[in-house]
Amino acid sequence: MYDFAADIASCARDVEAALGELLDSGRLSGPGPAAERVVAAMRHGSLGGGKRLRPLLVRQAASIFQVEPARSLTAGLAVEMVHCYSLIHDDLPAMDDDDLRRGRPTVHKAYDEATAILAGDALLTHAFALLADPRCHPDAEVRIRLVAELAAGSGAGGMVGGQMRDIESEQGSLSADDISTLQAMKTGALIRASVRMGAILGGAEPRALSVLTAYAEAAGRAFQLADDILDVTATAETMGKATGKDAGAGKQTLVAQLGLDAARARLAQTVNDALSALRTFGPRADGLRATARYFASREN
Amino acid sequence: MYDFAADIASCARDVEAALGELLDSGRLSGPGPAAERVVAAMRHGSLGGGKRLRPLLVRQAASIFQVEPARSLTAGLAVEMVHCYSLIHDDLPAMDDDDLRRGRPTVHKAYDEATAILAGDALLTHAFALLADPRCHPDAEVRIRLVAELAAGSGAGGMVGGQMRDIESEQGSLSADDISTLQAMKTGALIRASVRMGAILGGAEPRALSVLTAYAEAAGRAFQLADDILDVTATAETMGKATGKDAGAGKQTLVAQLGLDAARARLAQTVNDALSALRTFGPRADGLRATARYFASREN
Repeated sequence: MYDFAADIASCARDVEAALGELLDSGRLSGPGPAAERVVAAMRHGSLGGGKRLRPLLVRQAASIFQVEPARSLTAGLAVEMVHCYSLIHDDLPAMDDDDLRRGRPTVHKAYDEATAILAGDALLTHAFALLADPRCHPDAEVRIRLVAELAAGSGAGGMVGGQMRDIESEQGSLSADDISTLQAMKTGALIRASVRMGAILGGAEPRALSVLTAYAEAAGRAFQLADDILDVTATAETMGKATGKDAGAGKQTLVAQLGLDAARARLAQTVNDALSALRTFGPRADGLRATARYFASREN
Repeated sequence: MYDFAADIASCARDVEAALGELLDSGRLSGPGPAAERVVAAMRHGSLGGGKRLRPLLVRQAASIFQVEPARSLTAGLAVEMVHCYSLIHDDLPAMDDDDLRRGRPTVHKAYDEATAILAGDALLTHAFALLADPRCHPDAEVRIRLVAELAAGSGAGGMVGGQMRDIESEQGSLSADDISTLQAMKTGALIRASVRMGAILGGAEPRALSVLTAYAEAAGRAFQLADDILDVTATAETMGKATGKDAGAGKQTLVAQLGLDAARARLAQTVNDALSALRTFGPRADGLRATARYFASREN
């Protein structure tokens, strides 16, 4: 019987321990000795919490193909490092200008802006170094596909492009379709990459990969819808960060477009879409099923 | 007979044309449509000039192993994209705060800070996407080694770490050794990666790779020494940017430490070191020889 609470907790523990070991100035690859200050900022921006949902998705997708958690961890770390770099850069004064994240000072507050920019750059860079390491997977063909997947999810046609569209959207009004595209890129692309990377590690056939991609895209939409709903409904207390912030900053969400009830209905439908995509898989996909439901339950 | 002027001009033309074609919102890989604004900023920060010395080094090192220029171009573009991203981020107000580069507004001036941060992030990301593409090299093993090499040269133990040390050095005085380490990382690491990537494309044996690495490290030192000398001796007119700036900003250089004459003597010795490393190669290394000399001649 699959136990989601145990899975997410064990994955988070594994990620925290492995990142802590990896982010050490003596261990980061390079011709010179890694600069201590940038490594400290990388640690500040990536250790000490986080639900580690993206490594969880890598692990769960890989486990469909009987890949042991220990064998999908490195790829999960790479995605997590990209996620953490994006938070560090998004928090910068020139972007969302946030002082706090998870109740702690953001990297540019704990250090300074230059250090935060460099720490983000280095996390992004070392994510690819991790994927290139044979410890990630013995087959170079698999590793290079992971590189391609992570780069596609993170770049101008993925996460970075979504962040750009999000910033631009503050200056004008978007249609519901435009908001969907923006969100599919800003948060969806990395969720999609995580699931696909797990599938690639498992040697998924094209059909299985395409089914899992459909799951991931629906799960990503659910994640963002739940986040938008949460932004409207949660109190600052339960979140530990400022809420209603997106609406206040003029950010456009589907909740603002559709209203809360319609957004909730759409969320339920989206979770169903995610679950339907998995119907060809047996109990081995229970992890991914539970995660899709978890994404939606975050609104509570 | 090797013709350096023709080589550098043809390489720069090839890089400019290929980058221009590549940096198109329809061509950048990703699950969504690349955001036009970030692509425009990526173009601003990477097209329209530059000597393209890093792709030249990739090409010249590869040509020792009879790799045609067209077959080393993609790897060269990846290094150049990393170089351009680093310039965009270094120019930011939180870093060197430069308004002009090559006589044109820097990316954060032409666009804004957020866009410049994202454009840099995207260039770095798509550099790895390029290396992952089979058009870079048909063998996945070669491509993944290129990824490892570029990441090592660009990360916390390479370029980013060097930039961090450079910023930190403004607050304290460094020994000549510390300055050498800083420079070997900040500019040397990417020069080293360029030469090694060319050698890897050419299937260099470990011994050849290690000899070429020694060349690259010496050439990188020569490049930086010449730059420091130039900073002191050139007029703003010939450079097209503010000079004497490094000294003014409290940046520490070997010229300040050793004096101009000793720095020039060291530059001559360093070029000799670079040339000596190439002695096992015949005329096929004339390109790399000419480039090492060119690095030193920049002081004139």
